[in-house]
Amino acid sequence: MSSSQVDIPKKYKACVYDKPGKISTKVVELDMPEPGPGEVLINLTHSGVCHSDFGIMTNSWAGLPHPTQPGQVGGHEGVGKVVKLGPGSDQFSSVKVGDRVGVKWVSSACGSCPPCLEGMEGVCANQKISGYYTPGTFQQYVLGPANYVTPIPDGLESADAAPMLCAGVTTYAALRKSGAISGQWVVISGAGGGLGHIAVQLASRGMSFRVIGIDAGAKEQIIKDSGAEHFIDVTKHDDKSMAEEVKKLTGGLGASAVVVCTASNKAYAQAMDLLRFGGTLVCVGMPEGKPEPIGKAFPAFMVAKQKNITSVAVGNRREAIEALDFAARGVVKTHSTRVKMDKLTEVFEQMKEGSLIGRVVLDLQ
Amino acid sequence: MSSSQVDIPKKYKACVYDKPGKISTKVVELDMPEPGPGEVLINLTHSGVCHSDFGIMTNSWAGLPHPTQPGQVGGHEGVGKVVKLGPGSDQFSSVKVGDRVGVKWVSSACGSCPPCLEGMEGVCANQKISGYYTPGTFQQYVLGPANYVTPIPDGLESADAAPMLCAGVTTYAALRKSGAISGQWVVISGAGGGLGHIAVQLASRGMSFRVIGIDAGAKEQIIKDSGAEHFIDVTKHDDKSMAEEVKKLTGGLGASAVVVCTASNKAYAQAMDLLRFGGTLVCVGMPEGKPEPIGKAFPAFMVAKQKNITSVAVGNRREAIEALDFAARGVVKTHSTRVKMDKLTEVFEQMKEGSLIGRVVLDLQ
Amino acid sequence: MSSSQVDIPKKYKACVYDKPGKISTKVVELDMPEPGPGEVLINLTHSGVCHSDFGIMTNSWAGLPHPTQPGQVGGHEGVGKVVKLGPGSDQFSSVKVGDRVGVKWVSSACGSCPPCLEGMEGVCANQKISGYYTPGTFQQYVLGPANYVTPIPDGLESADAAPMLCAGVTTYAALRKSGAISGQWVVISGAGGGLGHIAVQLASRGMSFRVIGIDAGAKEQIIKDSGAEHFIDVTKHDDKSMAEEVKKLTGGLGASAVVVCTASNKAYAQAMDLLRFGGTLVCVGMPEGKPEPIGKAFPAFMVAKQKNITSVAVGNRREAIEALDFAARGVVKTHSTRVKMDKLTEVFEQMKEGSLIGRVVLDLQ
Amino acid sequence: MSSSQVDIPKKYKACVYDKPGKISTKVVELDMPEPGPGEVLINLTHSGVCHSDFGIMTNSWAGLPHPTQPGQVGGHEGVGKVVKLGPGSDQFSSVKVGDRVGVKWVSSACGSCPPCLEGMEGVCANQKISGYYTPGTFQQYVLGPANYVTPIPDGLESADAAPMLCAGVTTYAALRKSGAISGQWVVISGAGGGLGHIAVQLASRGMSFRVIGIDAGAKEQIIKDSGAEHFIDVTKHDDKSMAEEVKKLTGGLGASAVVVCTASNKAYAQAMDLLRFGGTLVCVGMPEGKPEPIGKAFPAFMVAKQKNITSVAVGNRREAIEALDFAARGVVKTHSTRVKMDKLTEVFEQMKEGSLIGRVVLDLQ
Repeated sequence: MSSSQVDIPKKYKACVYDKPGKISTKVVELDMPEPGPGEVLINLTHSGVCHSDFGIMTNSWAGLPHPTQPGQVGGHEGVGKVVKLGPGSDQFSSVKVGDRVGVKWVSSACGSCPPCLEGMEGVCANQKISGYYTPGTFQQYVLGPANYVTPIPDGLESADAAPMLCAGVTTYAALRKSGAISGQWVVISGAGGGLGHIAVQLASRGMSFRVIGIDAGAKEQIIKDSGAEHFIDVTKHDDKSMAEEVKKLTGGLGASAVVVCTASNKAYAQAMDLLRFGGTLVCVGMPEGKPEPIGKAFPAFMVAKQKNITSVAVGNRREAIEALDFAARGVVKTHSTRVKMDKLTEVFEQMKEGSLIGRVVLDLQ
Repeated sequence: MSSSQVDIPKKYKACVYDKPGKISTKVVELDMPEPGPGEVLINLTHSGVCHSDFGIMTNSWAGLPHPTQPGQVGGHEGVGKVVKLGPGSDQFSSVKVGDRVGVKWVSSACGSCPPCLEGMEGVCANQKISGYYTPGTFQQYVLGPANYVTPIPDGLESADAAPMLCAGVTTYAALRKSGAISGQWVVISGAGGGLGHIAVQLASRGMSFRVIGIDAGAKEQIIKDSGAEHFIDVTKHDDKSMAEEVKKLTGGLGASAVVVCTASNKAYAQAMDLLRFGGTLVCVGMPEGKPEPIGKAFPAFMVAKQKNITSVAVGNRREAIEALDFAARGVVKTHSTRVKMDKLTEVFEQMKEGSLIGRVVLDLQ
Repeated sequence: MSSSQVDIPKKYKACVYDKPGKISTKVVELDMPEPGPGEVLINLTHSGVCHSDFGIMTNSWAGLPHPTQPGQVGGHEGVGKVVKLGPGSDQFSSVKVGDRVGVKWVSSACGSCPPCLEGMEGVCANQKISGYYTPGTFQQYVLGPANYVTPIPDGLESADAAPMLCAGVTTYAALRKSGAISGQWVVISGAGGGLGHIAVQLASRGMSFRVIGIDAGAKEQIIKDSGAEHFIDVTKHDDKSMAEEVKKLTGGLGASAVVVCTASNKAYAQAMDLLRFGGTLVCVGMPEGKPEPIGKAFPAFMVAKQKNITSVAVGNRREAIEALDFAARGVVKTHSTRVKMDKLTEVFEQMKEGSLIGRVVLDLQ
Repeated sequence: MSSSQVDIPKKYKACVYDKPGKISTKVVELDMPEPGPGEVLINLTHSGVCHSDFGIMTNSWAGLPHPTQPGQVGGHEGVGKVVKLGPGSDQFSSVKVGDRVGVKWVSSACGSCPPCLEGMEGVCANQKISGYYTPGTFQQYVLGPANYVTPIPDGLESADAAPMLCAGVTTYAALRKSGAISGQWVVISGAGGGLGHIAVQLASRGMSFRVIGIDAGAKEQIIKDSGAEHFIDVTKHDDKSMAEEVKKLTGGLGASAVVVCTASNKAYAQAMDLLRFGGTLVCVGMPEGKPEPIGKAFPAFMVAKQKNITSVAVGNRREAIEALDFAARGVVKTHSTRVKMDKLTEVFEQMKEGSLIGRVVLDLQ
């Protein structure tokens, strides 16, 4: 398995945040890195662009422990081919030169801390975040740990795989944690968004849940196309009538789970009332600004119907592989547009304006 | 199995709420009821007195759908012997005349609605509440459904069984729902109270959890005696130092579960910060007054550590039997005082003053 | 809710085993029974005919504790309308006159014994078996416990509901116990049979499993139509090539679960080798004759791949309701033929010859 | 974190199988190995001696894929201090020079294959077995993967930790997989053996199960001392009276789980009848010789009581850490004798004769 067969240039192109705090990216040339012990070098061909990248670029996200530095390469939904193995990589993984692999939000996790040992890499104390702690996936080459990159299944195009590495994995993990069983009702809040439309597909076609999608009226078509049995226009209901509508559609009891895919405090405020007895609210979207408690998370109210709240950071490696398998089988299809690296600033500007439709995938070739 | 062997008087003594809204009870004579189809008549010997009885008597509990009526017999922790079977009772149960049985908060559940079919009788839409919807256990005789009364195990004194039917079952169900496994840390908030001191015993001696008990300083001894490894005096800590103390005691991570047994918003506000990654807050105590959301139940905060919130109404029949089994084996012992029926008003007055120590059990004989 | 509105005759028709031990049934007239406390009287319109009925009629089933008596009314897949309530029935259930309900294999369970309290009514020590312990569903009227008859959902024809009460519920329970999650491979052994073709539909369309059906070649069409991705002809493979075929179809690992729906020791002998690591064999079909241990249930062999074996008696009430819901939504359709009561002996003769195709449903009107 | 502070000799002592196939070991001097990428060098002080080592030395174990080679260093329960880190080790783990760590049966697992991703490292396709695939723990120095060695908790003596790495972890994993909950009855078969006496302690004191220990009469004392409520002398019962005895002791139902810790087909033959409805047989011990199916693993028999069979290879890293924590807290104490390396051949001879009492731990210093 010789890496000498692959021709690796000395320089390559990357897209960096040149003025962190502002919407600005710049394509630069960087020196080719050398994979260290246990690492692999990946020639990326595609990277999804996520709203979290926007938060890192603009330093606007409250959850960030330090300001983003000029020259940071962003991105955390990358797909490409392994072109070189660092020393000892073969001892930690069966990844070979030529394999297609993916890089996700958590670009590496220690594998040995308590959360990792319980399959919760998303809360690994030693985790690294792609495109923030480490150079990300808005570039043609990236390093990754041999034992942590995600294998991409045959038959799934790289451009389609990229968004599954973040939006796909996270919503898949959320649906698994919902506690709902096949045949039960699940409400997806923010069902027409980047996360939501994948959640609807996974829930309905991948897991046999019965889905009610909630979003603004313009999203009705994509939500129905994604497999929802019912659509509720959030703009046409107050909290009370929304709850009544969900009760009516679910035969009087409410939904077994509500997965909030949108970063809206209002969505969280409405969610608790949509649940049936013993139902579970799954937190995915993270509202920005001053934190507000989940609406109606009153002890006596929860006790009266034995309701639950759970939360999902990002999926783990197993969930990543399972989510990609659904995509490879055609059960899930991401709505995406492909653009070149030099258009990334424009993409972020559209993201700010809210005029983006579906996911944008950078073509890095 | 002839009921003729038991001598049943025509009249018997009961303790009623003669002036609902006020702290007042009165011992009266009532006519002996006749068990209907599927019912049994029970000669009660003991009944626990719970804070929920106080709320019903005084009409002070926000959760009550209608005002308590004069003449209501209260109580929901009753134990006695079956003295007569109604028609068809033997078709619905193996209960026989002479069996000791218990009556709990949910005095009957339909057994056929969705919550009942999922073992969540505490949210049965057709449930009846003892001492509020139906005549309760502050009396010498009571009717109950043959298929819903709780068998009392041999070797457990009736006076000791009574408090297990409410405080015992509820905390047992809460510990089961906590998701903690043996060997893990569980914090009991309100650990020295009527619910709490049973929770500590069940958790430590019955389920092999490692227990940290939180309460006011005067409760340290009962908490330690109940099996807690550590005690934290809530009066000596602010929210931050409390969280630090729990982290320190648990080896740096926090507790796998926090069970809030006290009806205090402050306890709920502190609880989330005591949890380790993936940990679960279990709501048991129900704060009165204007509902307040659980402190720090922020979506982003929960997501960051994959925290969960769950809630327990009351345990189901299986949990009642399992909790009583722990008591019968001596794993759990309730601290209780026995008083006669004519002292019930005094008991409620002491309850209001907060001067009661442990559980009070009425001797109905 | 007056039962006087329904006209109930004094006599009605029933089909009895007149010569137990032989294939022989006879239509007779019986006196109308009166519902006792907690019971309802049901006017049956349809009853499925199951292979277990054959075993009871012919006294050929080793599991039977006593010989079947002449005059026994058989049948355990009945559907009809409630026409009268016994005393107290309304206290134990919300069933009303006019409701459509079903009677299944376990016609009543005590609801209070340890198995019942854990949702395992199929092993209730006090259970009654329809068509063996109690008069069954091959008749126009039958009694049943108000709190145990199964509600039939609107929109599902009674003739289609009948087979779901036995074949549907049992396979549904088996698939739930398999431990497989949506997207994983499940092998159904005996996939073209009465149980099997429903299992394939529930597994593929109802629970999003990926299904491999195994049976004889003639069953390929019904198995593929039922939703299996792959069919394996059992007559064309020995044990070794069967295991290799399943490994190949599942990407090299084997199936997460194998559900054996056929009463064949050979099917059990092959099953263990079809499982991937950590996979589960679910026993449903019960081979007759001298008991043989499950093939390759060797401790060292199971340990080496951490394999599991589980088993399902019949589903519980919750599972019955969930299985019927899938049928009401059209996810599952039973292949059935309707015949009149006086043809029942012929049906059993065809059953013996193995010439029956699909399920037979008696039209009792 | 400089490794230069530790003085590492050029040669060290190891105990090898000089004549595989026979009971023979020899102390030799070996060259000090150099840790490769991601590896650490460990200065071992103690190693347990397990019956599996005997099987490898004597080439008598049917499960072995290749004959043991002369010069193989055996052992798989080793404890010592990290003295040197290979390149990149700090990227894969937080292990530091000076940390005490353990080496277990699975000395390394890939961490990336399907079983590893599901926490089943014991069936990792790329796993290495200490003392068979790789040089084992009967030596003063050994290499191990930084991310796979097991941290040893403070306060637990190395000699006490060693046996926990195999016997402790395996039985702990078995008890977790049993499905039993605290307060339920668990039978340990072979309760006085090396695995069994640890299983009894973990089950009773660590997990609050009620334990019945089965073994030969001479083991009664150690079994009772380990926390069993009841002891049954296997030599005084036939299969039927054994089942009756367990039923009587468990209140009539049987045990929720039976964990077979002995490698005896007879123990497996008896186990199924000791289970209550829904109970689980856990396979741990692996009988040698021609494989025999588990006794009474008949489909119809299992179905009739909804029984289950599960199996455990070895525990995973999380389970190892949890099992060691019980030992560090003093909940579990291994009965062991310490001997010097040059006595290893004698130890194996005693093992063959069956005259060993408790576990032997080699002092490697």
